[in-house]
Amino acid sequence: MSSDLTAYLRSNRERFEQEFVDFLRIPSVSTEKRYAEDVARCAEWLAEIVREAGMDNVEIIPTEGNPFVVAEKMVDPAAPTVLVYGHYDVQPVDPEELWDAPPFEPTYKNGRIYARGTNDDKGQVLMHVQALEARIKGGFGMPVNVKLCFEGEEEIGSINLETFLRSAADRLACDAVIVSDTGMLGIDIPSIGTGLRGIAYLEVFVDGPAGDLHSGSYGGAVVNPAFALAQIISKLKDEDGRVTVPGFYDRVRPISETIRAETRALPFTDEEFIEETGAPALDGEAGYSTLERLWYRPALDVNGMISGFTGDGAKTVLPAKASAKISMRLVADQDPDEIAQLFTKYVESLAPEGVTVRVVPAHGGWPWSGDPDSPLFEAAAQALEDSFGRRPVYIGEGGSIPIIPLFEEVLKGPVLLLGFAPPGGNAHAPNEWMDVETYHKGIETIARLYDEVAARGI
Amino acid sequence: MSSDLTAYLRSNRERFEQEFVDFLRIPSVSTEKRYAEDVARCAEWLAEIVREAGMDNVEIIPTEGNPFVVAEKMVDPAAPTVLVYGHYDVQPVDPEELWDAPPFEPTYKNGRIYARGTNDDKGQVLMHVQALEARIKGGFGMPVNVKLCFEGEEEIGSINLETFLRSAADRLACDAVIVSDTGMLGIDIPSIGTGLRGIAYLEVFVDGPAGDLHSGSYGGAVVNPAFALAQIISKLKDEDGRVTVPGFYDRVRPISETIRAETRALPFTDEEFIEETGAPALDGEAGYSTLERLWYRPALDVNGMISGFTGDGAKTVLPAKASAKISMRLVADQDPDEIAQLFTKYVESLAPEGVTVRVVPAHGGWPWSGDPDSPLFEAAAQALEDSFGRRPVYIGEGGSIPIIPLFEEVLKGPVLLLGFAPPGGNAHAPNEWMDVETYHKGIETIARLYDEVAARGI
Repeated sequence: MSSDLTAYLRSNRERFEQEFVDFLRIPSVSTEKRYAEDVARCAEWLAEIVREAGMDNVEIIPTEGNPFVVAEKMVDPAAPTVLVYGHYDVQPVDPEELWDAPPFEPTYKNGRIYARGTNDDKGQVLMHVQALEARIKGGFGMPVNVKLCFEGEEEIGSINLETFLRSAADRLACDAVIVSDTGMLGIDIPSIGTGLRGIAYLEVFVDGPAGDLHSGSYGGAVVNPAFALAQIISKLKDEDGRVTVPGFYDRVRPISETIRAETRALPFTDEEFIEETGAPALDGEAGYSTLERLWYRPALDVNGMISGFTGDGAKTVLPAKASAKISMRLVADQDPDEIAQLFTKYVESLAPEGVTVRVVPAHGGWPWSGDPDSPLFEAAAQALEDSFGRRPVYIGEGGSIPIIPLFEEVLKGPVLLLGFAPPGGNAHAPNEWMDVETYHKGIETIARLYDEVAARGI
Repeated sequence: MSSDLTAYLRSNRERFEQEFVDFLRIPSVSTEKRYAEDVARCAEWLAEIVREAGMDNVEIIPTEGNPFVVAEKMVDPAAPTVLVYGHYDVQPVDPEELWDAPPFEPTYKNGRIYARGTNDDKGQVLMHVQALEARIKGGFGMPVNVKLCFEGEEEIGSINLETFLRSAADRLACDAVIVSDTGMLGIDIPSIGTGLRGIAYLEVFVDGPAGDLHSGSYGGAVVNPAFALAQIISKLKDEDGRVTVPGFYDRVRPISETIRAETRALPFTDEEFIEETGAPALDGEAGYSTLERLWYRPALDVNGMISGFTGDGAKTVLPAKASAKISMRLVADQDPDEIAQLFTKYVESLAPEGVTVRVVPAHGGWPWSGDPDSPLFEAAAQALEDSFGRRPVYIGEGGSIPIIPLFEEVLKGPVLLLGFAPPGGNAHAPNEWMDVETYHKGIETIARLYDEVAARGI
């Protein structure tokens, strides 16, 4: 990137921030009906600024809920096409009394801008728009084709996203998807997301006698469903912390050497993590570090469990039934449906004599994994290093974001998780904030990224 | 017993039943304050009929709650002395609308008397009084000394019994205690109680992280307390259904050959028991039959268990804690305090890395076991056989009646459980009933028993 472009960015800092503040002032809360007009107004504001940035075919596309804002800049059919995803809706502000300043009156303090949506996700959306503006309006040219796809329902589960993606698959066709809706490991540590775990969530029901029995009159001869459930659960992991469901690990991709090395080098200690969780100690699958266990290895957790008498005091009941909610976090290439079937078959096989066991699937979601050795990752790493002055780190995420695997499935291209939210940025809490310097470095990173992608291909 | 005595009993049948009906008409419900005057009136009625039976030193002894009615007939300091225990208070009648006839208006139907208290325990109390009347007033003489001790708080946990027994231990001194407050295996099967299980009831608390965590962000690296609890519980019994707490069986008395043979001969089938419980199948400690497991072997049951999210649907929580209520049914000579200590030590030793485990005792009760080869049992068996026309069976009881071990501890003599309540007699339910023929056979049995005890000693 030419020094002219950085100069352009520098000379437009104040206007960029002013636009950011204007964007933040619109209370586009998608979770509450009373903000419906604000959400619509926000889509219009966003479409307008995208148009002003020089993008073509800018359109507000209605859905049964909130509209999508789409646009494109097609410069060369032979060049790679990247699609940028983000969302302009925000979380509710409750409890509003815990905000130090009104959530929709952006406030500067200690190099931060405080307001609802600063990092989740308005700041990250606008970085892309302003980077495009710099390239197009600044006259520096676009080395790749870019499409934008911003939604207004991310905070209510992206309920119309899948339908829209499938119906508009041609219009959104691309070689890669850039998602800027995640975070950084540290305020000055540029980060690239490498993986998201999927999930298979099921419920196990153990039924014994027809009704609760007196544990004195029946105990010892009638199988206790709570005990049977405990036996079943205890057999789901072995002494090494490995899930014992047959076939469970068959599709698990080993952690690449690149990722292992990157992960080991991160500024992370078990001591701090213990302090964060308040757990007396850590434990998990043998042979893996804490971050590897959290990000790149599957896990099995009991989310809830109930049987018999759970009130105060002592009641001598032999419960009629017991149940547990159990979920497994999955990593690429585990298939949530297949895992649910393997789990069901195994749990049914563990049913002791004297009880019946039913397994009912609740929901599933695919894992996602990026390839840090791919040109797309390398392009992003270079752009981040040039903008932030240090090599980015690769970070995983133990939770599940179901729309990421969806992008890959529908749009076929690989996904890049290029996130700029600060750790502790209060994305879903009072006093959400964005670091001002990071905001500008984000714009710079994105503006540089197009050259790096063009240089490497996807 | 002379045929004159049976003739006396026969000629007084109508009067005996009339007295029984009068007794039943008094609503001596101890669980509800509004019946307090009726309870007091019932004690007076009982004391009066005991006096009319020819007993000496009849006294109503007040407590902080309801009074005891005590009496004695001391005929020969060299003869054995038996103390008879029963209770004149009754269960509440709710839900009253389910009674076919008013609960305190005794009603004859199909050879039964229906009313609250018919079998629990007014009928059994009055059998003893009328048997004594027959011996004393009929002029047949008393071959043993007899003391009566009837309480009015059995249905509210015998709250003043221990204090009274200890304070009146000299007055109540005896060689054996006869308790008529249990049941028969069948309507025409005379039965002697051979054992009651004790109990050690504890609660296990497993604590992990300081608060509930997101199972996506933390699952796999933070130990799951619900899983840890399941592991602990699953290790409390082995594959043979034996409790694995070290030392648990050390004091367990083996089942005597007499009891094993008696138990095997009982009219009992697993199929009927399965139907009664609605369980798909039975299972328990290897090497023992269902009745042996229920009556003469200790057992361990989970009475309740809870952790994490237990509402409808799926919540991805890694719970901060999990807990279970666990009770062990004990048999002679297991000590509930010692068992609680052994359990606590063992469970604490099972605590996996990453959680802390606390065990909190709730309550305990001693087991009780009678000796079927003792002269007391043989005397009762002979009296029952002569009155019912068939040899009695020996039956255990899986539940706990804490006052039985208390009698043995305080009064030193062995206890005889001589019960006449019919199976399915609705002792704590609407439409409680007593079989009229059994009522009279009970009086005859008790009248015969004194001779049998005198003949054998205790």
